[in-house]
Amino acid sequence: MDILIRNTLAVLPDGDGHEVGRHDIYLQGNVIADIDKAPEGFAATEIIDGTRRLTIPGLVNAHTHTYMSLMRNAADDLAFMDWLFGTVMPIEDRMEPEDAYWGSLLGQIEMIRSGTTCFNDMQMHVGQTTRAVADSGMRAVIGRGLQGDAYDENDRRITEALKDLRDYSDCDRLSFFLAPHAPYTCAPEYLRLVVDVARREGLGIHMHIAESETETTDMWRDHHCTPVEYVRDAGVFELPTIAAHCVRVNASDRAILAENGVSVVTSPASNMKLGNGFAPVPELIEAGVNVCLGTDGAASNNAQNMFRELGLLALIHKGTHDTPQCISADDAFRMATRNAGKALGLPIGAIEVGKKADLAMLDLDSTSLTPLGNPVAALAYSANGSEVCTVIIDGRIVMRERELTTIDEERVRHEVARICSRIRVGLA
Amino acid sequence: MDILIRNTLAVLPDGDGHEVGRHDIYLQGNVIADIDKAPEGFAATEIIDGTRRLTIPGLVNAHTHTYMSLMRNAADDLAFMDWLFGTVMPIEDRMEPEDAYWGSLLGQIEMIRSGTTCFNDMQMHVGQTTRAVADSGMRAVIGRGLQGDAYDENDRRITEALKDLRDYSDCDRLSFFLAPHAPYTCAPEYLRLVVDVARREGLGIHMHIAESETETTDMWRDHHCTPVEYVRDAGVFELPTIAAHCVRVNASDRAILAENGVSVVTSPASNMKLGNGFAPVPELIEAGVNVCLGTDGAASNNAQNMFRELGLLALIHKGTHDTPQCISADDAFRMATRNAGKALGLPIGAIEVGKKADLAMLDLDSTSLTPLGNPVAALAYSANGSEVCTVIIDGRIVMRERELTTIDEERVRHEVARICSRIRVGLA
Repeated sequence: MDILIRNTLAVLPDGDGHEVGRHDIYLQGNVIADIDKAPEGFAATEIIDGTRRLTIPGLVNAHTHTYMSLMRNAADDLAFMDWLFGTVMPIEDRMEPEDAYWGSLLGQIEMIRSGTTCFNDMQMHVGQTTRAVADSGMRAVIGRGLQGDAYDENDRRITEALKDLRDYSDCDRLSFFLAPHAPYTCAPEYLRLVVDVARREGLGIHMHIAESETETTDMWRDHHCTPVEYVRDAGVFELPTIAAHCVRVNASDRAILAENGVSVVTSPASNMKLGNGFAPVPELIEAGVNVCLGTDGAASNNAQNMFRELGLLALIHKGTHDTPQCISADDAFRMATRNAGKALGLPIGAIEVGKKADLAMLDLDSTSLTPLGNPVAALAYSANGSEVCTVIIDGRIVMRERELTTIDEERVRHEVARICSRIRVGLA
Repeated sequence: MDILIRNTLAVLPDGDGHEVGRHDIYLQGNVIADIDKAPEGFAATEIIDGTRRLTIPGLVNAHTHTYMSLMRNAADDLAFMDWLFGTVMPIEDRMEPEDAYWGSLLGQIEMIRSGTTCFNDMQMHVGQTTRAVADSGMRAVIGRGLQGDAYDENDRRITEALKDLRDYSDCDRLSFFLAPHAPYTCAPEYLRLVVDVARREGLGIHMHIAESETETTDMWRDHHCTPVEYVRDAGVFELPTIAAHCVRVNASDRAILAENGVSVVTSPASNMKLGNGFAPVPELIEAGVNVCLGTDGAASNNAQNMFRELGLLALIHKGTHDTPQCISADDAFRMATRNAGKALGLPIGAIEVGKKADLAMLDLDSTSLTPLGNPVAALAYSANGSEVCTVIIDGRIVMRERELTTIDEERVRHEVARICSRIRVGLA
């Protein structure tokens, strides 16, 4: 299927910033085949009028747990332990595997509606989020959450992760990382096992690192090192690594992350909401770290809307650093798009010849985009995600003028209501 | 016109928090006449099915400059002086008075669409925002921005402010404050004049106070006091006062604000965006200050969406104070509603018998409200404003199922485009 998006205002990469201008974008199969001239053999099966549209690379949600959309607005304004043990875990205990399929689809609806085309997911119920991605048409990188304390070749969770990978090997939109949960749930021997398996299978690593003050003080008490050092010493950074959070990383940690090419995903809403503070994003960038953006799960966000996250990212560091020039709109947008492509090892996150045809189109008649002014500033500071009207993933239109083409939204709402009445009993 | 909203999930005040339940709400004329039973003489001209709606008191944007919507996304990621002198003021210089009418209507469209029913505006072009409010059906408190250095009974700006007040004395939805701009643009003698006029006319005061570090250091250098002390010493706090920002207020300032019953409006997006930091909102509340929420103008926000602001308010202080229990969703929602009613001296901001019929209704089939969970948490943490489908102000439906009934949106967009091509020439 070849699609021509004609005469659209488009946000193209230009060095670290962006060039915004009117372009014709030619999508051939699942690839951006050319810009402003038809590629050889192009035969448009659909022409989209882009005149009143702002076309952007689809946003990449670089850290989330989509099944947790079932826990939205269930545990708010609580101390961390009450949040985790009082609400999140009791709900998880009542979940059946298939519930995660519907929860993930719910999160994916919210992401598609707000212009996200790819996400990096740490899942619990293997086979569910993967199946939901296969069905939804989204692009995703999946990691089954792992934890353990020994080097056991027959580890159940790793076995499950590898089964998931094999079961979905024919879906181009799916790729896999191994996802050891966190330093405090994975012994060094277990991390070494994960590294050995990941190396053998050619996979990257996705892990929560240095999310809270408690994590760093406990790590110091028990191991006399920082979480970053602990993970490095287990060999994790020898492989492509995505470290979620990194709120509590000192200058030495930041240098380690940079030297080892570790990508960091910042999740400002979740970090603030759980009382963990602000990740040192400007300092991570200064150190040379590739920083990406993610929502985290809906139990701690409570949205899966990357526009909300983009706004937070571009604002909060101006606040913590008392300067309006800290983390520009261009910086934030880059973190929400091509930095994630780099972290995930995928040709996504930019409107560029050869990249995957993953695009979102915003309605320029939206009040929040009137007047438009600097389009990248608009994306970070005035848009809220509801301006997105059409979304293309892997060359396929998954939302056309706000109508989803791949997901039965009413069915998902129905199933979610049914599931929530069981798993959220006695809770909000 | 009497309206019955039947069987709606509604957010009612309950002490400092909220009670959420199913109710029938009876609007008689412009007032909430009764809840769950028809008031005497009630004759519904319209019945709205509230079954799949969450009905909330209309949000109150307690500090903005609506004409500045013309400057949206025009000056971003700039040092404050480049922002003010390089972009905002050149645009203002090119503005003709009627431009402000269209700019204000643009801001009001964005506010109505995101559930705001009343705003407190500091305007420049007298007679324009007022006229726009008269036409739009919104509720507003208007203050013409004032500055001066002498006690001059014939001060032009005050004369204009009073003319505006008299010209619109027949519009119930409009009320007026006097709005001396800031400590650094108003000499003590001028503030004494403003106070005398406000006292004579029975008006409150709306003023920017202690917005930036520069303001406090300059004040100390020139007057050996804080901005709060400077304003207090000029007698301003003898009248009902709304102080915008108060980012740089120390413990003594906070006690002064509390003792004098001054209401503070916090504008987190604007404060962060201009590099001014975070207002000490938890400490202001602790001191006993009535704190409200406002977007500030679109030159520094860049939206007029109170849901965006509500989310920021409920998140950032958890970040600065490293605790998930700082500024709960209930706290933030109260600041966005009834605290502002108190500050403005208007019977608004709560679904309560006798309050004005100012309501917003959100679509419970929105993905961001699925599952709903705690509805107040949903408003603060997962909604983005696009869930609002119907808005009632002063007993009149100004938006019905996302169609505006009072404003010709296409005409506004057309006029704004025409104006911006003149006043934003050479800028984004």
